[in-house]
Amino acid sequence: MKAEIICIGDELLIGQTVNSNAAFIGEVLTEHGYEVLQALAISDKADAITGALTNAMQRSSLVIITGGLGPTRDDLTKLTLARFFGSQLVSDAATLARIEAFFASRNLPMLDMNRQQALVPDNCVVLHNLKGTANGMWFEREGVVVVALPGVPYEMKWLIEQELLPRLKLRNTGQHIVSRTYLTQGVGESFIADKISLWEDDIRENGLSLAYLPSPGRVKLRLTATGADATRLNDLLDEKEKPLLDLIGDIVYGRDRDTLAGSLQTLFTAQGLSLGVAESCTGGRILHELTTAAGASLYLRGGVVAYNKEMKINILGVPEALASHDIYSEDCALAMARGIRQITGATLGVGITGVAGPGPDPAYPGIAAGHVAMAIAADGWHWAAAAQFGRERKRVMEMACNTLLFQLRREILARTTV
Amino acid sequence: MKAEIICIGDELLIGQTVNSNAAFIGEVLTEHGYEVLQALAISDKADAITGALTNAMQRSSLVIITGGLGPTRDDLTKLTLARFFGSQLVSDAATLARIEAFFASRNLPMLDMNRQQALVPDNCVVLHNLKGTANGMWFEREGVVVVALPGVPYEMKWLIEQELLPRLKLRNTGQHIVSRTYLTQGVGESFIADKISLWEDDIRENGLSLAYLPSPGRVKLRLTATGADATRLNDLLDEKEKPLLDLIGDIVYGRDRDTLAGSLQTLFTAQGLSLGVAESCTGGRILHELTTAAGASLYLRGGVVAYNKEMKINILGVPEALASHDIYSEDCALAMARGIRQITGATLGVGITGVAGPGPDPAYPGIAAGHVAMAIAADGWHWAAAAQFGRERKRVMEMACNTLLFQLRREILARTTV
Repeated sequence: MKAEIICIGDELLIGQTVNSNAAFIGEVLTEHGYEVLQALAISDKADAITGALTNAMQRSSLVIITGGLGPTRDDLTKLTLARFFGSQLVSDAATLARIEAFFASRNLPMLDMNRQQALVPDNCVVLHNLKGTANGMWFEREGVVVVALPGVPYEMKWLIEQELLPRLKLRNTGQHIVSRTYLTQGVGESFIADKISLWEDDIRENGLSLAYLPSPGRVKLRLTATGADATRLNDLLDEKEKPLLDLIGDIVYGRDRDTLAGSLQTLFTAQGLSLGVAESCTGGRILHELTTAAGASLYLRGGVVAYNKEMKINILGVPEALASHDIYSEDCALAMARGIRQITGATLGVGITGVAGPGPDPAYPGIAAGHVAMAIAADGWHWAAAAQFGRERKRVMEMACNTLLFQLRREILARTTV
Repeated sequence: MKAEIICIGDELLIGQTVNSNAAFIGEVLTEHGYEVLQALAISDKADAITGALTNAMQRSSLVIITGGLGPTRDDLTKLTLARFFGSQLVSDAATLARIEAFFASRNLPMLDMNRQQALVPDNCVVLHNLKGTANGMWFEREGVVVVALPGVPYEMKWLIEQELLPRLKLRNTGQHIVSRTYLTQGVGESFIADKISLWEDDIRENGLSLAYLPSPGRVKLRLTATGADATRLNDLLDEKEKPLLDLIGDIVYGRDRDTLAGSLQTLFTAQGLSLGVAESCTGGRILHELTTAAGASLYLRGGVVAYNKEMKINILGVPEALASHDIYSEDCALAMARGIRQITGATLGVGITGVAGPGPDPAYPGIAAGHVAMAIAADGWHWAAAAQFGRERKRVMEMACNTLLFQLRREILARTTV
């Protein structure tokens, strides 16, 4: 089954908004057995919309459109689709009642343009949006389904899960696409490709495909199988997993939607460990990353962002000589890790200090931007190292955070799997 | 001048990677006077690539392609383009030397597939990639420029800035697209549309266009002018700005690429203020947001992420009765704000406590997920409030962070602009 995504909005073309809707929809459609042929972003213009829709309907049996359903004048999708499908716009009583209730509950005045949100084409199935004022619409022509959804991500997601997927499941049987992704960190894609070359020959002979998806410091490996029998495909993937992990298991920190934060949470809670975090140059990024996973409070005690020397000394107990002269050293990172471990009473403490950039710290001009020292403190052992992560501030923070958390996982595993 | 973007990679279609490259390229092309007609994501397949390229070259004078230039077997772009443009692949001595030096400097073994990265089509201008091993390529046919770039974002960005833009500037004169974006928070798009309705009539009569770009709690307003005379367009935008700000200036926190964190930094440093941050449910997000802006250390002293009761009491000095019984109250948020203000010696402290969700805190089942209390403490005044931000963890954290920082800006401005 072939599908396409059309996202409408000038903001996508001028780079003001990153098209995360296309990624979400692509993921959901793939999971449900669709081959997504393309994802297209176009302008809020009637001829661009009808042109893209005409082409897509020739190739695919499902076309998902997002955006341009709002109440303001730049929103043209509903009118354009009504013209395309020869619809009359009629007021939908349930929608009007919902919009009125929404405005009443917030004590907001209701405007004429809000009332117009209740107009729907008379020849579509209305997908009622209980999270906002713009409904979704399901049209069908010559076996092709065209679904229009609002562009606001959480309304779009809600409509897909509550209204679209149940309808698609009723229609479909057939082809399956199953894939698994292995998340690696620490070595480059050509190194991995060389190491798994024979395995890669073998899986390709078995009709599987492999993609390398590099990002700074990390490579994802996506293994995909396509066919009619989902159980057989899953068995095939199972069978190929072990020999892959025998080759590169040491650099794999998770699978599919796992995150490094999530895999740490699993590890910490399984072993009854707890953590305190002392950050300087990463400015809260590590804590933010760890707490994004629900349940972080099961092992994370908290942390301190010591963004100046005084906080390092007064809160974390870093010796003054160290904080004054070697503030970006591994010793200072270790003192921070020990300090936060003591303050929080956690089993493990991590500390990180360095120069996020883009320029050097004026007080320490000899240390280049991107220099970062990291440490882990525990009962009876510690780890500390320094690295250079370039000059781009966000990238330095990201690489430093990933490196320290990956090492934390590695150190714990090394000490318990012997 | 018309342009299109083609991003190659199955990871974009199955939703594994969000297409941030298209956003970056769209922004740069728009700034340089191109009208971006569409941004297309397609599969790593030769026929998909040649099909998309053929269509794009009929509509546009510039086509930017990203992705599929890596060393592994799923990377087909270079071979496909060489076939499309009738090229021979030849080894490029400078590239080979660069790749060899790269591997030598990292003490890594060099593989045959790395050596193949030095092969380039003989009829393109090679855009030498000094940040990685995959070069960019500039082809021309019948007045249409086709540029292929690697998909790794920071390599792609570097090549655009260093190699592509200087070449495009040499070619182009003519049409300009100028836009300004006003960043608002706190009210919905239909409310804004109603408030600025007469102004919107006026700007449309003057040939300008306006787009509403909503996201949770925020609306961006993008005002765009198109024409041959860039100075005239900028004057026109200048002229329309003041009447807009007279209508909605109280909800505008910045323009274009401003961020709330950046505008706070400007405000704090201009007034010689400093800040300490005490977070609970937002888990470091506020500190992370503030420190992403370079120069945050000019006003931000640091903060504490008190992810459990003990840290609230022991580090922030929240009274035990409050931390035990009213841990999610405005009083507790205020005690945290006062605590961090005292610890850091900052002029202002902010505190935030609540239930990020998705479920309630088992210890306080009566308080729903999404309940957040926020406070600001200063010398002689304070502010505190509670709100409900729904049940989706990330969204609760994002809304809480944005709300508190927006209020912080508002309170400071209210106290100094009277």
